[in-house]
Formats: sequence, structure tokens, C-alpha cells
Amino acid sequence: MAIQKPRGTEDILPGQAEAWQYVERKAREWFARYRYREIRTPLFEHTELFQRGVGETTDIVEKEMYTFADRKGRSLTLRPEGTAGVVRAFVEHKLYAEPDVVKLYYLGPMFRYERPQAGRQRQFHQIGVEAFGSADPRLDAEVMELAWRIFTDLGVQHLRLDVNSVGCPMCRPRHRQALVEHLAGVKDELCPDCQSRLVRNPLRVLDCKQERCQELTQDAPTVLDHLCDACRAHFDAVRKALEALGVPYAVNPRLVRGLDYYTQTAFEFVVEGEGHLAGTICGGGRYNGLVAELGGPDVPGIGFAFGVERLLYVLAAQGTRLPADAGLDCFVIALGEAAKGEALVLAQRLRAAGLSADVDYLDRKLKAQFKVADRYGARFAAILGDDELARGVVQLKNLATGEQEAVPLADVAEAVRQRLNRSEG
Amino acid sequence: MAIQKPRGTEDILPGQAEAWQYVERKAREWFARYRYREIRTPLFEHTELFQRGVGETTDIVEKEMYTFADRKGRSLTLRPEGTAGVVRAFVEHKLYAEPDVVKLYYLGPMFRYERPQAGRQRQFHQIGVEAFGSADPRLDAEVMELAWRIFTDLGVQHLRLDVNSVGCPMCRPRHRQALVEHLAGVKDELCPDCQSRLVRNPLRVLDCKQERCQELTQDAPTVLDHLCDACRAHFDAVRKALEALGVPYAVNPRLVRGLDYYTQTAFEFVVEGEGHLAGTICGGGRYNGLVAELGGPDVPGIGFAFGVERLLYVLAAQGTRLPADAGLDCFVIALGEAAKGEALVLAQRLRAAGLSADVDYLDRKLKAQFKVADRYGARFAAILGDDELARGVVQLKNLATGEQEAVPLADVAEAVRQRLNRSEG
Repeated sequence: MAIQKPRGTEDILPGQAEAWQYVERKAREWFARYRYREIRTPLFEHTELFQRGVGETTDIVEKEMYTFADRKGRSLTLRPEGTAGVVRAFVEHKLYAEPDVVKLYYLGPMFRYERPQAGRQRQFHQIGVEAFGSADPRLDAEVMELAWRIFTDLGVQHLRLDVNSVGCPMCRPRHRQALVEHLAGVKDELCPDCQSRLVRNPLRVLDCKQERCQELTQDAPTVLDHLCDACRAHFDAVRKALEALGVPYAVNPRLVRGLDYYTQTAFEFVVEGEGHLAGTICGGGRYNGLVAELGGPDVPGIGFAFGVERLLYVLAAQGTRLPADAGLDCFVIALGEAAKGEALVLAQRLRAAGLSADVDYLDRKLKAQFKVADRYGARFAAILGDDELARGVVQLKNLATGEQEAVPLADVAEAVRQRLNRSEG
Repeated sequence: MAIQKPRGTEDILPGQAEAWQYVERKAREWFARYRYREIRTPLFEHTELFQRGVGETTDIVEKEMYTFADRKGRSLTLRPEGTAGVVRAFVEHKLYAEPDVVKLYYLGPMFRYERPQAGRQRQFHQIGVEAFGSADPRLDAEVMELAWRIFTDLGVQHLRLDVNSVGCPMCRPRHRQALVEHLAGVKDELCPDCQSRLVRNPLRVLDCKQERCQELTQDAPTVLDHLCDACRAHFDAVRKALEALGVPYAVNPRLVRGLDYYTQTAFEFVVEGEGHLAGTICGGGRYNGLVAELGGPDVPGIGFAFGVERLLYVLAAQGTRLPADAGLDCFVIALGEAAKGEALVLAQRLRAAGLSADVDYLDRKLKAQFKVADRYGARFAAILGDDELARGVVQLKNLATGEQEAVPLADVAEAVRQRLNRSEG
């Protein structure tokens, strides 16, 4: 009996993988332009890293991690997100040794044990950046601009950038107190989750998706109203830099991040639309406390991450066409035993010249081989029979125009390249 | 306290990641030329897949798998190799529906719980291909040629291709019998492992690394001596095609693959050299029985895989220089508050034009900013002070030659591009 893929995972097949490659290539291009360089951290880490780096009280750590013991009994966890591992590596390899801005990007699979639903896989894929070493508000703007560039270059439409400041450990207690006082009067009307949040992490009440809770917190005091002078100045400077860069944004005072080491700038890219199409496609912000939390020096950081599955879903739903098949430059059609041997050598020559080529491996007749060339999206067919072999030529046929001419065997690669108007590969 | 990466894993940092990108890019280029297309399968699979697809009696399955139960008690395993998942996906998605040759490639992490040692990581990375649907011996040659192209293009030296045929379920019993008879006389002198192999899988005795076992099996009958007519004809045709393609190889009758669904062609790329440098960098072969074993139709297959860590180790040990840093096209040096804001906008313009650019985010003095430009490998510096800002220009300095000239702000991107002799990105 055939074995199936595990629940909550997907195979990405040819025809789909090309769109993934395209998104990754575009992201890498933009990262390089902003001097971000790739880091690759392990797919699993010591469980403690995520408890400390994501937060003990988060849904991720409480419910969603793939945790297992290795043969020595150490607790390991498949990474549920990308930042913790990057910060761990930043500290472990002392990448802070130079007083400099260290710009890193990552891409790859993440794992969360969630109920699978449209766009939520247990193995999913994120692309993200982290920039360490500077608290300059212009860097916040640059990070947001980078994400905005990638999304607009990929053709995402109806995109909105929401920006907020969640303050710092100096200003947050004042807001917390005001918020708790404000909510005390409506406490019994909040959903059970929010009643618990009110004690553990009142900021997250503002983030509740329940309609009634949203109504009740409509006029609740926001962190923005309680920023200390430094955080206020930082936020103003971020806004000014975004405006100088021409990045459209909206201030959303309800945008929160619940953990203590998130500071100041928080942002989200939201796609506006109907139903499942609408929603956040990218989240990010400053985490000036995280590097120290994970055992490093007091180095500020800022980053973002976006999910590839979600992005591809939005692009498809918005009707953006992504690459699906590169086609084939030349299919070599061979007729007869001698020609079959020679066809492979001709394919080799085409490939060595930087062209994509293939031959028939199923002993098909002429007509069937033409059908295959068509199925492969071949631009040219090079037809090689006993007669051609004796004369040292192929019949080179342009499959778009039907034009056909005899070309010496040794010149086929050059002829195809010229007709495709391509320089040497 | 800082948390460390798990034992047997590595971080791939900027400066190292570029070599990985280079190898992957080269491999992808060659795969496309041969019409291989990417498939991505999950990082974990149902454990049973590897028990059936790798083999219950292998070291991998017996000792080396990362196996864990999900919350429903299902046994999952981090993939220890790439072929089983690809075959599973090939069957699950009925990629055999079209009577065609399906050429797939994959790359990514694999996991084996091994004792970590030089070049053996618990998370390691493989690149491989699988071609389904044809038993044509020319395809065997093409698959080997493809690997050979990649390795020679990357600059691997002292490379040797060993080829063998391990026969098929028709001819193997005859060889097995001859082998068991031959070894019966020396049975007590074999190592304990081989005494056990003699019963369970005598073919693997030929593969033993113990010197004494190798001596004792020096004149043992090989599968090659016992091939049936079909396997003999297949092997001869593979050799003929390799010769036509000009791929150098050696027949190694001792090269074996122990599992029943491996058939006919088996091959390895070996690097010759001293000590740890010497060894296999790539293995592959036909597995005409595997698709059926995993619940699919009786479709032949062939493939290879190579380890990226091992390949990079060999390239480095042989002195091949790989990319480590792309440098930076232009570092924007800003002096004064107004210039700092403008610098970010100039960087944006450079990046939009396809160039890589960065600015100072640490409020450094002129001299320190030049040092940073140097550390980033910047080719140009664009210097922007209050005076330049008032005149609407920057001082554009070629950091290799020291030449400097005033360039209007709006023309800087074009000026850098021209001087780098680069077309629009």
C-alpha cells in the first residue's frame, strides 16, 4: 500500500516549485542590494532557546512545538520561527565583535503543530531578515522599505503597511496601568481568554479577534499615548524616514507585540480584500531586548518575516502570473539505432553550450517524439535520422514558426543559440 | 547564559553561505539544462516510508533516524535521505500518469543521528536527482554525465567514476549462491559483521572495509560474472554511451548496493587523495524495484545524491577558491543631520537601479565611515555633506583608484552603473 505524506505537510511539485524559486530569487536579489547576507541555522534547536526566545506564555511554545528527545535525553525542537536561531547564532559566533550593523537574512522551513487549514501547514516556509547593532530609526524605515520593495516587485496589490510603537520597558508600565484601569470596568464582558490576558499580558487584549472585545477596547488607551520622550522621538523619526523614502503607511495604535523584548517599532504588511484573501502577510519590529535575553550583549535588533505559502496564495488569488515552466530550448529527435547514440552526444553539446536539451528515452516513433517536444515546451527540434547522420547534419525546426533547415551537427548549438538570441552560457 | 547550537549541527554564516549558494546555483543550472525540475518534499515523513524505502536492515534505519511521535501518536521521522520521499511523492501525485520520463531534483537538509566527526553532521545537506520511467541504458549514462559535469564545473580534481552492475532479481540468486559457496571455506576468518552478512545479505561482504575481509574476498565471484543476458546487454550499452559522451570511468566489480530494489547500474564518484580527503563524494544507481516497493506501479528509476558538506570540504582541501563575499557597489557617506536623511534616499535610488548600497547607521565620523566602506568591500563611496547637499551633488569616489568627481544627486546611480560597466538591473 502506498504511504502518504504526513498530515499538514505539502509536496511542492514541478510546476509549483518554479514560483517558489522565483520568490526566493527576488527576495535574495533585494536582500543583496540592501547588504543583507544569508545565514543558515539548524532546523532544530535546544527547546530552551524557543522558551526563552519566543516566550513561555505564547501559543507557539505552549501548544505548537514539535519537541522530541534525542538518544541522550536532550530536549530538541524543530524551529517554529526563524529569529531565535539567528539570534542564538549571532551570540554564539560573536558576530557583535565588530562595532557594526550586521544584516542577516534566512529562508527555509519552520514547523508548528497546528490544526491544518487553508494556508496553515505544519511545515511552512518563511523568509526573513534581522539587522543587529543599530538603534537608528532610519534603519527601521529601511527594513520596512525592503519588505515593501519585495512585495511590490512581486506584484502584491492592495498592500497596506501598518506601523506602531509598542514603547520600551520605561514607558510600557504607565500604559499597562492605564489600560488595566480602563478595562477594569468592562472586565466581565471580555472573552475568557482576554480575562486571563488582563492579568498575564494586558497588551494582548488589544489584539483579540473577538468582535465584542474589539468594541470594548475601542477607546482603550494605546501605548502610543504613553510613549516616553525617547520612544516618541524614535517613532517620529521612523515616520519621517518612511515619508522621505516614499513608503506609504498608516499608524495603527492597536498593533501590538506581546513580549517584553519587543521595543518601539512594530509593523505589519496587510493585504486588503475579501474573505480569506485579506490579512497579514508579513510582521516585524524591533527587539532591543532579545539579544541580551539570549545571553548576548545589549545589542539592538530589528527584523521581519513573511510566509511563502501565504504570499503565493495572495499572488495567485490576485491573478498574478508566476513562472511555472521554463520550457526547453531543443528536443533532439532521433530515428534509428545509430541516431539514438548520436542524439545523446548532440544533447551533451547543446547543454555544454548553456542550452537546455533532452532526448527520447522511450524508443518512440517520430510523431510521438514531436508530441513530447511539444509537451516539454521545446522551442526547437533537432531531427536526426540515418540520412542526416550520413550527411553530418540535423534538420533544425523552429517549433513556433515551423521553419526548418539543415544545419551541420557541429553547428547546432550555435545555431539554436543565435536563433534564441542568447549569448554563451 | 547563552544557549549553544545542538551537537552535530552547524551554523552557516555569511562568508560561508556564499559558497553554498554557488554550489546550489551551479547544480540548478546543470539540472535545468538536462530538463530536471525541482521537487520539495517534507522534512519529515511517516517512519514506515524509510523502513520500506531505505531498508529495515540498514544502519540508517536501525540506528540513525530521528524518530518521534506527533500528538496523535503517529511515528514520524526526519528524512535521513532524499530518495524515499521523492518516490513517495511520485506515487502519491501519480506523476507516472503520463508515459514519460520524469526528471526531478531536490536539495536540502537530511538528518542522521551519527557520532559527529569531521564532515559528518547530524543535520547535513544533499543535492540529488531521480529520473523515473525509462530503463534505457543511455539514461544511466546521462545521469552519470550530469553529476560529472557538475563536479568538473565546480573544479573538483582527481575525480574517478566507478561503475558496476549489481544485476537484477533474475541473475542475483546465481551470484549469491556462488558467493556463499566461495566464502564458506573462509567463513571463520571473516569479521563478525560479515559472518552475519553472509546469512542476511552476502553481497555486502564485498563492501566490508576490514582489510582481512577484503583480502579474503579478493577472488570472490562478482555479480558482473553472473549477469543475465539482459543485464549484461544493459551494462555494455551503459559503457558504450559513457564512452560516446567522453565520460572517463572505471569498472569496479566490488561496488555494491545491498538492497533488493537496486538493479543493474551502480556508480560512485570517488576523489583520489591522501587521508580524509580521499573518498566517495557521490553515489547513485538504478532502483527499478523501488517505486513498486512503495506502492506505485512497476516504473524504473535511477538517481544520485551528493553531500554538500563533503563536496565543499574537498573543494577547500584541493585549494579551489569559492565565492565568499560579493562586496558592495556603493557606500553612501553622510556628514551632518540633513545629509543623513538624504543618504537613505540616495541608497534607495541606487538599490532601485539594481546596485547594492548601504549607509552608516552608527553616527560615525568621516574617517570611520571610509573604514566601513573598506570593510564592506565597497567599490564606490558617495560622499554627501552639507556643501554637496546645497549644490545637489555627491562626491563619487572610486575606492580602487582613488579618483573622485562631483556627480549630480539624480545621476549617481547611472554614474556608478556606467563605471561598473553594468546594465540596468
